[in-house]
Amino acid sequence: MATKRTKKGIRKSLSTEDVLGRLRGLAEQVIEQADRGDNPVIQIPVRSLSNVNFDPERSIIEMGDRKQSRILFNVNMAKKFMQTFLVASACKELLESGKTTSIRDLFYMTKHTLAGTGENTFDDQSESDPIIEDLEVTIQALREELHLFATNRGSLVGELTIVDGGDTIDARRMGTGGWAVPSIVEKDVIQFKKCNADFVLLVEKDAVWRRLNEDKFWKKHKAILVQSNGMPARGVRRLLRRMVDELKIPLYVLVDNDPWGLYIYSVIKQGSINLAFESIRMAVPSARFLGLSSFDRERYELPDNVTITLDSKDEARAKQMLEYPWFKERKWRRELKKMLDSKVKLELEALSAKGISFISEEYLPKKLSERDWLV
Amino acid sequence: MATKRTKKGIRKSLSTEDVLGRLRGLAEQVIEQADRGDNPVIQIPVRSLSNVNFDPERSIIEMGDRKQSRILFNVNMAKKFMQTFLVASACKELLESGKTTSIRDLFYMTKHTLAGTGENTFDDQSESDPIIEDLEVTIQALREELHLFATNRGSLVGELTIVDGGDTIDARRMGTGGWAVPSIVEKDVIQFKKCNADFVLLVEKDAVWRRLNEDKFWKKHKAILVQSNGMPARGVRRLLRRMVDELKIPLYVLVDNDPWGLYIYSVIKQGSINLAFESIRMAVPSARFLGLSSFDRERYELPDNVTITLDSKDEARAKQMLEYPWFKERKWRRELKKMLDSKVKLELEALSAKGISFISEEYLPKKLSERDWLV
Repeated sequence: MATKRTKKGIRKSLSTEDVLGRLRGLAEQVIEQADRGDNPVIQIPVRSLSNVNFDPERSIIEMGDRKQSRILFNVNMAKKFMQTFLVASACKELLESGKTTSIRDLFYMTKHTLAGTGENTFDDQSESDPIIEDLEVTIQALREELHLFATNRGSLVGELTIVDGGDTIDARRMGTGGWAVPSIVEKDVIQFKKCNADFVLLVEKDAVWRRLNEDKFWKKHKAILVQSNGMPARGVRRLLRRMVDELKIPLYVLVDNDPWGLYIYSVIKQGSINLAFESIRMAVPSARFLGLSSFDRERYELPDNVTITLDSKDEARAKQMLEYPWFKERKWRRELKKMLDSKVKLELEALSAKGISFISEEYLPKKLSERDWLV
Repeated sequence: MATKRTKKGIRKSLSTEDVLGRLRGLAEQVIEQADRGDNPVIQIPVRSLSNVNFDPERSIIEMGDRKQSRILFNVNMAKKFMQTFLVASACKELLESGKTTSIRDLFYMTKHTLAGTGENTFDDQSESDPIIEDLEVTIQALREELHLFATNRGSLVGELTIVDGGDTIDARRMGTGGWAVPSIVEKDVIQFKKCNADFVLLVEKDAVWRRLNEDKFWKKHKAILVQSNGMPARGVRRLLRRMVDELKIPLYVLVDNDPWGLYIYSVIKQGSINLAFESIRMAVPSARFLGLSSFDRERYELPDNVTITLDSKDEARAKQMLEYPWFKERKWRRELKKMLDSKVKLELEALSAKGISFISEEYLPKKLSERDWLV
């Protein structure tokens, strides 16, 4: 059950048949054990921090190799064992019927009271969610490949044609609203067609994205413009990764100049610690941090009264980030130290103090032409 | 400066010229007062609860007629007077340049330090937001008409063609993601074209909307399907209202069976108390509450283990709603009492316990054909 992984760390999408095969394999293995009279057991990779590593070569956060056994005839594990197969069976049903659903829905689909007892298969969604993650790591398939989705968030416009569920969507003609990025963006649903874009620009804030869309920034600069409404949802991250891999164009990230903005960039780039097992499919190590940089305040002569003082939480967060392996390099230390020294943060909207279209007509063009970004 | 209001309470969109005229009128009035040597003053409708009424005939929450004076030469009011004109001036600039922006951005646009002093025009967005609302009620124009927007949220698919910023968007071919509803949906940006829909269905939850979209419910039942991701943003509310007014089709609302779901319905229907001044443009008094009803549990034989016990906050909220004038009717009291008596609430996803497509293939078709809704 090896992951399909190329040398460069690109893992291809699994087909429905691949995923079904893995689910069947899991079940067959248990049946064989039972037939032999053995106590059925499955091996589940450990998802805790102790089993997470940063791979400096590929520059992503990855899971280690440690596994735990989940045993059927064991008082502490019997329920979880049963739950794992309940979830696996529901996913099999979804895959076979070609339907997708939310993890909340899956909880309701698999919740029932065991006949003749008052015992429920699941009492709460907090029980079924970790089982989904167990299943993801065990058969090395993302939840999206199991036909499960998270929240829908984010929108896209720009120099790209997309096929979404059979419908052709020209992102150059999506008006002011844009195309709503779905949470499942795997190849069987979403395909890329004609692309004239030279790069993808991810903007953390809807309001800034709207400004850039209204100014047709994406047209003038041949770009694909994505907004994530804060920390990007899984669908957005996966889509960014697919665009970088398949369209072979760079990704720029534009966030607030505060520790949270840098954290968003860091998750896009390396993945997050508690979802390390998905980094291989979601992280974009080549993502370029375009701004706001702590040095932009002076470089672009922003007035003092648009800055916001760092609070103690911001300071603690920034210091913590200085410890991240991927922020160890001198250029990042310089960036983070500048923020800590100046004691202020800056929102993207602060650029509007220089004029409403300053961001699209001066700030971004200058940043791009001067190659003023960090990786 | 009378509102354009027809007999049936429909207020037409203002043109850019109308809004600019009103802004100029406000300024000219102050100049005249100054020329006469009077202390400049403007009259601002009071936005507090004490000036809010429920109009049972038109069935919406409305502002009363009380006004307060804002005087230039008055120690307590001089700053707010100046701020009002700063905001008005920035909106005039937006309107004249044909650009739109967020209320956060407007804060940055109008924030500066007064020359020769340490005094800022605005210190915080919490100062500029109420000034925007003051301006809205004073010149009777919505913030969207002043070219200001709130967050972008919600998506749409279905039997409708829309023109958005000059681009034609066929909502029948929007794939799995749908068209992202922008926050400004006034006529100068969004126009409706070919509509084959018999009704609009608003779903509170993204996951349920996706289920219905995947099952092509909107095609089978000739509908427009909108999701709001919780309480609908202003853009979604305004769009629903425009669709009901202009396409002349009914609106159905599908929410969780809990006090919050009923509150969402209530805001769509009558408007909210603290934004009463926008009801005339946003409320849809004819909106039909399709479900989940507290009676659905028995009618559709949902298992007991998918219910959630009401907590004390839910109970307090439900009792409070029994006091709302628009929930005074017997049918609504019956609905709310059933919820309180049964002591449980129910999420839309609970319907999945009966099968993943139960909602699109059985629940909704039955509800609609049996005309099983409340108004």
